[in-house]
Amino acid sequence: MKLILQASLWLSVCLNALFISFGIWIILKRGGLSYLAMRVPLLKKLGVPIVQIAAFNFPYYDHRQSQLERLPIQSSDIVFLGDSITDEGEWAELLKNPAIKNRGISSDTTIGVLDRLPDIINSQPQKIFLMIGVNDLSNLGRSPVEVSQSYKEILTQIRARSPQTNVFIQSVLPIHPGLFIGSTTNSNIRALNEQLQSLADEFSYTYIDLHSHFLDAHHQLDTTYTIDGIHLNGIAYQRWAKLIEPHVFS
Amino acid sequence: MKLILQASLWLSVCLNALFISFGIWIILKRGGLSYLAMRVPLLKKLGVPIVQIAAFNFPYYDHRQSQLERLPIQSSDIVFLGDSITDEGEWAELLKNPAIKNRGISSDTTIGVLDRLPDIINSQPQKIFLMIGVNDLSNLGRSPVEVSQSYKEILTQIRARSPQTNVFIQSVLPIHPGLFIGSTTNSNIRALNEQLQSLADEFSYTYIDLHSHFLDAHHQLDTTYTIDGIHLNGIAYQRWAKLIEPHVFS
Repeated sequence: MKLILQASLWLSVCLNALFISFGIWIILKRGGLSYLAMRVPLLKKLGVPIVQIAAFNFPYYDHRQSQLERLPIQSSDIVFLGDSITDEGEWAELLKNPAIKNRGISSDTTIGVLDRLPDIINSQPQKIFLMIGVNDLSNLGRSPVEVSQSYKEILTQIRARSPQTNVFIQSVLPIHPGLFIGSTTNSNIRALNEQLQSLADEFSYTYIDLHSHFLDAHHQLDTTYTIDGIHLNGIAYQRWAKLIEPHVFS
Repeated sequence: MKLILQASLWLSVCLNALFISFGIWIILKRGGLSYLAMRVPLLKKLGVPIVQIAAFNFPYYDHRQSQLERLPIQSSDIVFLGDSITDEGEWAELLKNPAIKNRGISSDTTIGVLDRLPDIINSQPQKIFLMIGVNDLSNLGRSPVEVSQSYKEILTQIRARSPQTNVFIQSVLPIHPGLFIGSTTNSNIRALNEQLQSLADEFSYTYIDLHSHFLDAHHQLDTTYTIDGIHLNGIAYQRWAKLIEPHVFS
């Protein structure tokens, strides 16, 4: 009897070790502690540093950034700058304007945008349509005020180094909490949007409220527009394009 | 002593149950059996049906397809059709040609392309640059011959319904087996490329050998071009664009 117990325990512990090793292997492959800190806001609060934003979406982020930094921007260009929600839009087609350059990268945050901003503003593009911040809230567990501080730094750098550029601050879109697997709330997003509106006033840039156009009756992202509660389908992109069209062609 | 043994066993078994439940939860969230069948070719061979190709990359695939089906293609357009490797290229910018329309969708296969082909050829585009098949091999566990049969069906439909369209059959690129986590081999890819070359002859379409331009000394995808052994960085996209440029502008 004792022998059976011992054998079972041995087997069970081996299985435990196997599962744990597999878990560690997966985490290491995705970027180690830095990856964990992004997924588990508690770790970040305990002081685990987030070394590299890109780790969250490695290697896609690095591959795409290495492509984008090789593609020149002209002073006549209209840059769409942001995260996956910008990345996934075929903007030049949606708005029938080949001057539009997609500079969205999935998983990006205000910190990532700050990092790659020199590439974007070096040649002083005509316009920048900016939508960023939801991953700061959701993946990095930052507060709306913290995010708006990085956002302000982005605007400050654009104003200083590319004063002719017309910046359009697009509100962060709502999520659908029942579908979205990330960890932020629409009240966080609304708080961030209020900050963005103040920043737009402060810098005399145009604030575009998209948020309210994508809401259902419960003030969540309408399921007409999404499967996963954050990313958008074609109906949403057509609606978005229509809403910003006057600003793109003005 | 026996009590300690029993307690340890109980604890260890509970932990295992927890790990297994977590694993099952992840798999269910990603599409259940159908997802597993795509990841584990053995299951497919045992007869587990793959219900929906898109499930492998759900919801991205559905979101993107719903956007692409709303974007018109003109008869003067040059369509880039394929999977993630096409999807991730900013082709209109890389080749400085706004007539280029990106119709790549991450995770797509010859079966997915067949499914959405009517949207693509309806308006009889000027040219189609096709690169597809590696996900058939890797995610669906299909053989090179099986893939080439679906590929032939794609070409047959284009020839029949859009006879003016000039089709460029781009070879499937190599992978780096040490980095790539999928389950195919370069010898499978080479076998598929031989089939594609024959198909190009059969249909009098142009076959473009890209494969050989991205190899290292061991006949694998050169690490100059990739982090994960299958997807590409900016250096690769610039090289690719240069190689097909004469065909794009001819």
